[in-house]
Amino acid sequence: MTVFLNGKYSPRDEATVSVDDRGFLFGDGVYEVITAYRGRPFRLNAHLERLRYGLAALRINSVDPEIFRQVGRKLLADNELTGSDCTLYIQVTRGVAPRLHSFPPENTQPTVYMSVTPLSAGARSPNKTITAILIPDFRWSRCDIKSVSLVANVLARQRAIDAGVKEAILVRDGVALEGTFTSLFAVFRNEVVTNPNSNYILHGVTRDVVLELCKAQGITCRETPIFEQEIRQAQEVFVTSTSMEIVPVIELDGKPVADGKPGRLTKRLQAAFQDVITSFLEQPDDSWEK
Amino acid sequence: MTVFLNGKYSPRDEATVSVDDRGFLFGDGVYEVITAYRGRPFRLNAHLERLRYGLAALRINSVDPEIFRQVGRKLLADNELTGSDCTLYIQVTRGVAPRLHSFPPENTQPTVYMSVTPLSAGARSPNKTITAILIPDFRWSRCDIKSVSLVANVLARQRAIDAGVKEAILVRDGVALEGTFTSLFAVFRNEVVTNPNSNYILHGVTRDVVLELCKAQGITCRETPIFEQEIRQAQEVFVTSTSMEIVPVIELDGKPVADGKPGRLTKRLQAAFQDVITSFLEQPDDSWEK
Repeated sequence: MTVFLNGKYSPRDEATVSVDDRGFLFGDGVYEVITAYRGRPFRLNAHLERLRYGLAALRINSVDPEIFRQVGRKLLADNELTGSDCTLYIQVTRGVAPRLHSFPPENTQPTVYMSVTPLSAGARSPNKTITAILIPDFRWSRCDIKSVSLVANVLARQRAIDAGVKEAILVRDGVALEGTFTSLFAVFRNEVVTNPNSNYILHGVTRDVVLELCKAQGITCRETPIFEQEIRQAQEVFVTSTSMEIVPVIELDGKPVADGKPGRLTKRLQAAFQDVITSFLEQPDDSWEK
Repeated sequence: MTVFLNGKYSPRDEATVSVDDRGFLFGDGVYEVITAYRGRPFRLNAHLERLRYGLAALRINSVDPEIFRQVGRKLLADNELTGSDCTLYIQVTRGVAPRLHSFPPENTQPTVYMSVTPLSAGARSPNKTITAILIPDFRWSRCDIKSVSLVANVLARQRAIDAGVKEAILVRDGVALEGTFTSLFAVFRNEVVTNPNSNYILHGVTRDVVLELCKAQGITCRETPIFEQEIRQAQEVFVTSTSMEIVPVIELDGKPVADGKPGRLTKRLQAAFQDVITSFLEQPDDSWEK
């Protein structure tokens, strides 16, 4: 695989960063993961806008988004993935500087790293389901910033794996907020519910697509807290992410969600999501343009 | 400067890590900073024990602490710092693996990085004082782990710099816990107070030295919460860190602490700390031994 690092393309195993990179020393950067369907990045603008938001929140010198478009396109071409489903990874850190917690000199150049990975065969299976556990949220309180300081997410995700499930849903102050790499939805009284955007959750790009789909499909959807106490009685639970799209959660803490099968509204939204992708792929390809 | 990375010594600007290092991708690692006085590491065992604690908490494969001793010694020698005051930096990450939040295969080798930096001329000045602000703590709730996922500390420290002060004291649920790189002490009714060790603060090595000094000096010291409301009325406030030792905080949020001068007990503890260093340096040098 060819990757991009600070202006250069190289094989992945030759791409290295300085030990003084603030990504390595401080987790001081942000990242994005974008799905490209048959080589076309989906909702690229929304991802680049979230990247811009994170860079601004961390006050990292801005990077011309045109770079991400050009490099993304070239990485897919160079890796012969222009016709494949894959993910595009972007990471920007505050750059290389002597180790001090406070910001380095203003002219410090951010580190820009980009790579592509083919989607695994089962990633987009329409029959995929997952199981999850609820655990206390011990992350920082700026989860709206997609920062690479991810050690809490790593530990939480591993707790799920150790429990024999796929995802851990993080609970803060009685609210089931989101997964370690997914946005959370539940269905109560035939209404789709997801937590309002705040500093405690990531503003999910796929989450936004689901909100749009609900509107288009005439499904009532409300942005209101999903309480831990309530989620165990939900009619349906599902999670969303860029690479997994929409996936039913059929078991929580070892107990089935409702009858333990993917719910009616979840399946409807999954089908609607596939229609969106299909029509996206039928349009003329301007997915790399502004 | 010669640094150490995964078994190799090299000039600092030639030491690089893979873009797939979990330190760079996830801030998935821990670190230590140890002061060496005239080339002798102070409280090395306490630092290595804290490193071991952090590695265990993150479930990173253990590293034989003998390596840190051997490499530390050699780095000081190779950089001609055996007679100088300097800091030794150690960072251990979960190693290099394809990007997945959950833990990589068990045989993944941790990345070990070590470097040395001479202490700046003014670092140990006995007349040093600092100013600080109080800000809400937005870090994760495992601050007892000295993780390199430090973006919250970076932002907090920068807020202090932007406010024209040296340090930001982090306040959680009404308790003034610690600084971004320092432990916090206050004096009330002639008693020294510091927060009890918990998951919300780092277990400071210099903090422990101060507790010992209080005992030896007959100064009453209690480990009890320092409330935000109270700290503004403190007789004295000081912070401690490995590289700064004990430093009076003479101003909080733009208002003087008491009369705005270093307090009596703070100065007494500073003097006692210097005596400890002096006697440490007078003893036969077994500072690198177990």
